[in-house]
Amino acid sequence: MSGQNPSFVLKAVKEVAFEDRPKPKLRHEYDVIVHIAQTGICGSDVHYWQRGRIGEFVLTGPMVLGHESSGMVVEVGAKVKNLKPGDKVALEPGIPCRRCDYCRKGSYHLCGDTIFAATPPYDGTLAKYYNNDADFCYKLPENMDLEEGAMVEPVSVAVAICKQADLRAHQTVLVLGCGPIGVLCQAVAKSWGASRVVGVDVVQSRLDVARSYGADAVFAPSQPELGTDAVAHAEKMAAQLNEACGFGDGPDVVLECSGAEACVQLGVFAAKKGATMVQAGMGKENVLFPITAVCTKGLRLQGSIRYTTGCYPAAIELISSGKISVKKLITNRYKFEDAEAAFELVKAGRQDVFKVMIAGVA
Amino acid sequence: MSGQNPSFVLKAVKEVAFEDRPKPKLRHEYDVIVHIAQTGICGSDVHYWQRGRIGEFVLTGPMVLGHESSGMVVEVGAKVKNLKPGDKVALEPGIPCRRCDYCRKGSYHLCGDTIFAATPPYDGTLAKYYNNDADFCYKLPENMDLEEGAMVEPVSVAVAICKQADLRAHQTVLVLGCGPIGVLCQAVAKSWGASRVVGVDVVQSRLDVARSYGADAVFAPSQPELGTDAVAHAEKMAAQLNEACGFGDGPDVVLECSGAEACVQLGVFAAKKGATMVQAGMGKENVLFPITAVCTKGLRLQGSIRYTTGCYPAAIELISSGKISVKKLITNRYKFEDAEAAFELVKAGRQDVFKVMIAGVA
Amino acid sequence: MSGQNPSFVLKAVKEVAFEDRPKPKLRHEYDVIVHIAQTGICGSDVHYWQRGRIGEFVLTGPMVLGHESSGMVVEVGAKVKNLKPGDKVALEPGIPCRRCDYCRKGSYHLCGDTIFAATPPYDGTLAKYYNNDADFCYKLPENMDLEEGAMVEPVSVAVAICKQADLRAHQTVLVLGCGPIGVLCQAVAKSWGASRVVGVDVVQSRLDVARSYGADAVFAPSQPELGTDAVAHAEKMAAQLNEACGFGDGPDVVLECSGAEACVQLGVFAAKKGATMVQAGMGKENVLFPITAVCTKGLRLQGSIRYTTGCYPAAIELISSGKISVKKLITNRYKFEDAEAAFELVKAGRQDVFKVMIAGVA
Amino acid sequence: MSGQNPSFVLKAVKEVAFEDRPKPKLRHEYDVIVHIAQTGICGSDVHYWQRGRIGEFVLTGPMVLGHESSGMVVEVGAKVKNLKPGDKVALEPGIPCRRCDYCRKGSYHLCGDTIFAATPPYDGTLAKYYNNDADFCYKLPENMDLEEGAMVEPVSVAVAICKQADLRAHQTVLVLGCGPIGVLCQAVAKSWGASRVVGVDVVQSRLDVARSYGADAVFAPSQPELGTDAVAHAEKMAAQLNEACGFGDGPDVVLECSGAEACVQLGVFAAKKGATMVQAGMGKENVLFPITAVCTKGLRLQGSIRYTTGCYPAAIELISSGKISVKKLITNRYKFEDAEAAFELVKAGRQDVFKVMIAGVA
Repeated sequence: MSGQNPSFVLKAVKEVAFEDRPKPKLRHEYDVIVHIAQTGICGSDVHYWQRGRIGEFVLTGPMVLGHESSGMVVEVGAKVKNLKPGDKVALEPGIPCRRCDYCRKGSYHLCGDTIFAATPPYDGTLAKYYNNDADFCYKLPENMDLEEGAMVEPVSVAVAICKQADLRAHQTVLVLGCGPIGVLCQAVAKSWGASRVVGVDVVQSRLDVARSYGADAVFAPSQPELGTDAVAHAEKMAAQLNEACGFGDGPDVVLECSGAEACVQLGVFAAKKGATMVQAGMGKENVLFPITAVCTKGLRLQGSIRYTTGCYPAAIELISSGKISVKKLITNRYKFEDAEAAFELVKAGRQDVFKVMIAGVA
Repeated sequence: MSGQNPSFVLKAVKEVAFEDRPKPKLRHEYDVIVHIAQTGICGSDVHYWQRGRIGEFVLTGPMVLGHESSGMVVEVGAKVKNLKPGDKVALEPGIPCRRCDYCRKGSYHLCGDTIFAATPPYDGTLAKYYNNDADFCYKLPENMDLEEGAMVEPVSVAVAICKQADLRAHQTVLVLGCGPIGVLCQAVAKSWGASRVVGVDVVQSRLDVARSYGADAVFAPSQPELGTDAVAHAEKMAAQLNEACGFGDGPDVVLECSGAEACVQLGVFAAKKGATMVQAGMGKENVLFPITAVCTKGLRLQGSIRYTTGCYPAAIELISSGKISVKKLITNRYKFEDAEAAFELVKAGRQDVFKVMIAGVA
Repeated sequence: MSGQNPSFVLKAVKEVAFEDRPKPKLRHEYDVIVHIAQTGICGSDVHYWQRGRIGEFVLTGPMVLGHESSGMVVEVGAKVKNLKPGDKVALEPGIPCRRCDYCRKGSYHLCGDTIFAATPPYDGTLAKYYNNDADFCYKLPENMDLEEGAMVEPVSVAVAICKQADLRAHQTVLVLGCGPIGVLCQAVAKSWGASRVVGVDVVQSRLDVARSYGADAVFAPSQPELGTDAVAHAEKMAAQLNEACGFGDGPDVVLECSGAEACVQLGVFAAKKGATMVQAGMGKENVLFPITAVCTKGLRLQGSIRYTTGCYPAAIELISSGKISVKKLITNRYKFEDAEAAFELVKAGRQDVFKVMIAGVA
Repeated sequence: MSGQNPSFVLKAVKEVAFEDRPKPKLRHEYDVIVHIAQTGICGSDVHYWQRGRIGEFVLTGPMVLGHESSGMVVEVGAKVKNLKPGDKVALEPGIPCRRCDYCRKGSYHLCGDTIFAATPPYDGTLAKYYNNDADFCYKLPENMDLEEGAMVEPVSVAVAICKQADLRAHQTVLVLGCGPIGVLCQAVAKSWGASRVVGVDVVQSRLDVARSYGADAVFAPSQPELGTDAVAHAEKMAAQLNEACGFGDGPDVVLECSGAEACVQLGVFAAKKGATMVQAGMGKENVLFPITAVCTKGLRLQGSIRYTTGCYPAAIELISSGKISVKKLITNRYKFEDAEAAFELVKAGRQDVFKVMIAGVA
C-alpha cells in the first residue's frame, strides 16, 4: 500500500475504507512523528465500527481506527530529549490537557480534554504515520520487538487495574473474566508478589490460557437454572469458589474484567470483608447489585479506566524482564491492507482468538 | 421499676417484656459495670423487634434491646486505669475479639466475633446495669450531660462514615438522606472544613433540619413519572442537583445515608469523576446500579459499617466543643417503664420524630 | 514611576535598581498578562539580595525580585477559559514543565524544570506586568482585595505544609516557629478541625500573634545553659512542653516552620509515637538529629517545599470565608518606588515586622 | 541438659548462667506452651548481655535471653482454634496490650505495654518451654523446618521495613548495610517486584552475600580523607553511587539498615526527590543530618521498629515458596549448652558470621 500516509478509516457505522491522508507534521516542540509498525485490535475499535458510539463518545465524521500501537520515531520536535529518530517506541494513545485539576493532581486518565486515539473525534493509529507527544512515547529496550511494543497497551491496562486495586504482595486475588485483560491482570498480580491468583471464566479455552498466565487455580461458575434467583445463585457460586480455590473467607482483591452482571455479583459475594474490587469490565450499563453486602462487608469498589503515569514503563519492564510473555496472546496476524479482515475476525468472537495484530505500512 | 437489674427484653418477634435479671459481675480485670442513664432508639432495634433479624443476625432467644447508651460507672476491674466509679461515660457497644487479623490490623469493625449490644445473641443496654470493656467506655467531659452521652453513638456513626470517605477540608460533599445520621454527617463534614455541603431528602421537614446541621443548600428530587425509566430519571436529577446546588462537575464526596435505590443511583450520577461515595444507608439488598458509570468515571464506592478507633473520642470532642449540637435532634423522651411506647413511636415513622431517648432505671 | 514595564531588579549581590523593561507579550495560547497590584516580601527574596544564592540556585545575572503577588488580568491567550481581562487574581509563581514524571503524577512541586518567579535565572513579579499561565492564576472572590490576594501565597505554603502532614480533624498539632508561615499553619490546622494547636517560639511578640492565630497554648523553650548538652536539653524541653501544653504522650503532628536546630530536635522528642513531623523551615544545612528516636518511635519526617494542586484554591477559600484573617499579618506597606526600603526593613528582622507589602505601579 | 525448664539467663551485665526454672503453665484461654526448637541470636541479645540496656530498656534483674525462635506446640488453651499440640510454629516475640489506641488502630508495634521476649523485664525464649499467645504463633508449612522457622523473625523485620517504605513493584531500591536484615530487605524488595535493588556496605564479604540476595548491583563507598568534610563526602559518594548503579536521579526507596552516620547521610543525598527512606538501623543516637536536603527534595524519612500484623505470615510465605532462601544465612550452629560460646561468636563480629543458631533442649 502506497501513498503519503495510508490510513484505515471508519467512514460511518459498519463502513471502513483505506484513504491516503497527508503526512503529519510536527505540531509543537515536544512532538514526535512515529512510523507505525504494529497495531493490536481492541474491543472498543470493533465497537465503534459496529455501533458508532461508546457511551458519550459518538462518531460524527470519518475517523482513523486503532490505538494499541508501536512504531519507529522518524522526526522529533526541537525540545524532545528522550527520543531520537530511529528509536522503537510504544505509544500511549491519550494525550491529556495537562492543565486541568485532574491532570495537575496526577489523575490524567480522568481529564475530559484528552485527545485519545480512535475515540471520536480523534483519529487513531492505523495509519502509516502518527503524531504523539514525546513523553507519551516510551522507548523499547533492545530485547523487545515491535509486536511486543504494541502489546504494551493491554499490559498497561492490566497494570492500571492492579494499581487501582492498590494490589500488594502477599494478597490473594480473584480475576473475573479470562480474556486478554483478565489474564494479563493475573500475570501482573503474580509478578507483584500476590500469594494466590484465581481466574474465573465460563469458557474452557480461556481458563486454559489463564493457567499459563499465573493462575494458581481456575473456576468455571455454573449458570443459574431457569426461573431461579440470579443473585442467590451468584452468592452460592461465590461460596463454592472460595471453598474450591482455597480462598477461605474470600480474596483480598477482586479484579472484574468481564463486565458480566453475574461476575459483578459473584465478585461482591466472594470478596473478603474489607476487600477491594476493581470494576474494569464494561457490559450492561446497569446491573442488579448487592449493595447491602458492600455496606456490611465494608468493601471498596473502584472503577478503573485507561492508565496513568508509570503504567507504560511498568508494562515495558514486565515484558522486557520476561515476567510476562505477551507473544503467546497474539493468535492472529494481518497485513495492513487486510485490516478489515482482521476486524471481522475479532467481531466473530471465536474462543481461540485472543489478540489480533495488524502490521503497519512499510 | 425495681429489682436487681430490670431489663427491656425482646422475647420473640413483636413481643417485648420487662424482666428482672441478675445484676452483672465483673467478667475480667479490664471490665467495668455501668449504670445505664440514657439510651437512644436506633432503627436496628425496631427492626429486630418487628422482624427478628437483620441479614445473617437472627433472634434465637430472648435478648435485651438497646445499644446507644450513656451511664455512670459503678465498678471497675483491677487493671482499669482510665475510669473510676462515678465517672459518666458513653458506651461503644461492640467489643471485638482483639485477636483476629481484622482486629490486629485496626479494622475491628469487621471482626466476626464482636460482641455487639442488641445484636443476636448478645444482650443490649436497655437494662439497669451493663458490662463493657473499659477501653470501650469513654469518659464524658464536665460540660456534657448523659443525654448528649447517649448521642455519642450516632455522631460516631457519622464520624466513621466521613472517615471511610477519607473526607478532607476543602472538599464538596453531597449527603443523601437527612435522617439523624445524614444530618450528623453534614455537621461532621462542615466541622472538618468541607467547603460545601448539600443535603438531599424527599421530606421537607427533614430538609429543614438539614439546614440547621451545616447544609449550605438542600435539594428535594422529584419522583420519576409512572412508566418512565428510573435510572434515566436519577441521571436527570443528578444534573439538576449539581446545577442547582453549585457543585459544577459534581461533589468530591457522596455520603449515602438513606439506603434508597433512587439515592444510590443519584449519588453515582452526581459524583465528580474520581469521587468517593460511601454507602452507609441500608435498604433493599440489591439495587439497579449504574456500574458502567462507576467504571468510566473512576469512582470509589466504599461500604461503611459501625465505627472504629478514634470515632467515639472524635464524636465527644465535636459535641463538647459545641461544633455539633445534638440536643435538638432529641425530639421525644420516655421513662424506662414506657420503653414499649417509645418503640411504637419510632416504628410509626412520623416525620417530626428524629431521635427518641429512654431514660434508665434510677 | 513610569515606563513600559518598570521593574525592581537584583543586579548583583546587595545591589538592586529600578529598570524599565519591555512590556511582556503573550507567549502562548494559555498565557495571561497580569498588571501586578501587591507583592509581599519573602525571606527568600532577601536571601538572594544579600547572598546571591539559595542552595543550588545561584544568581548569574540581573533578576527581577518578588513572587508573592496579586494583580489584574490585562490580556489573555486564545484558549484561556477561566479568566478575562479585568479579573483580579492571585498568582501561583511556579510553572512546572507539565511533562516530567513528577508533573504527570501530581508532584509538580518537585519538577526540576519549573519556572519559578525570582528564582535564578527567572524574573520575579516586582514589575508592572508579569506573564503567567492561566491555570496558575486564581480569580479572587468579590470579597477579597488585592492585598489579601498577595497573601494567598504564604497561606498556600501553610496549606501545603498541612497537606504534607496529612493533617486531619481531631489531631493535636505542635507548630515550631511563630513567624508568618508558622501562625498560618496554626490557623489552617484549626480550620481543618485540629483538636489542639500549640505554637512555640522564643520571641514573646510572636507568641502573642500566635495566640490570635488559633493557638490553644503557646510555649517559649529556654536555652540550654552554657556547656550543657543541647540535645539533652531539647529532650527536657519536649517533656516540659508536652506537660505544660496538655499533649500527654505528645502531639500527633509536628510542623517545623523555624529551621532552628533546637526546634528540629524538640520536635522529634515531643512527637507522639507514630507521629508525623513536617520539616518546612530552612536554616542550617545539617543539624544534629536524634535519628534513633525517629526509629524507635516510628516517626515520619516529611520535607515540604512550595505548594501543589489545590493549595491556592484552599488558601483563597480560607481567606474569603473569614476562617483566616491575613490583614493583621501585614505590618508594613510600601510604594513600589520604595521597594528597597521595604527590603531593608525585612532584612533588619525586627520582632514587630511580620509581612511587608509593596504596592504595584499604577 | 535436664530439668523442668532449663533456661539461659542473663544474671547481670556480662554474666550469663543456666538455670532450671519451673515449667510454665497456661496463663489464659488463648495461650499456648511451645517447646523451643531453634533460636537465632540477634544483636540486641548481645547488647543486653554486654551493656545491660538498650535505650530506655534497662536490665534490673535476671532475664532469659533470646527472641528469634521456633518450636513445637505442647499445650493449648481452651479457646485456641488455630493450633494444636504437635504443630511446628514460628513465634512472634512481642505480645501487645490489645487495648491501647496503638493496638486498636493497627499499630501494635508502638504499644508501650508490649511484653517482648528478652526485653527487660520480660524473659526470652532461650529456655525449654515458652508461653505465647496463640495468635502470635504461626504454624509452619510442611516444607519448612524449625531452623527456617527461627529465621522467620529476621525475615519479618525485613518485611516490616519494606512495608514502612510502602515499597511497590517497579520501584528502585537502595539498601544501606548488607548484614542479615539488609540482605533480607533486598530479597523482600525483589520478590515484591522492585525493578532495581542495590546493596551498599564497606565489607566485601557482605557485598558478596548481598549479590546472592537479589542485589542487581553493589557499591562500597570510600571513607572520607582525614580532615575533609564528612557530609560533603557523603554527598559525593551519593552521586558516584547513583551514577555507578544506574539509579539516574536516585532510588525511589532507601532502606537504611546499618545505623551508620555516613550511611544515613548517603541515603538522604542519593534519594530521588519525593523518595521514601526508612530508618531501621540503630547506631549513634544522634547524627549530623542533612535536613535541608530532606526539605528541598520533599523526602519522607520513616522510622521502622519491630513488625506488625501480616509480617510473620508474609515472611513464612516468602520462605516456604522458595522466594527467599534463609538457610545460607545460618553460618554457625550451637547446642543449647554451648549458648555462651554462641554469644561470644556473635560478639566477636567476624565478617564471615551472619546468623548464629542455638538448638533447643530436647
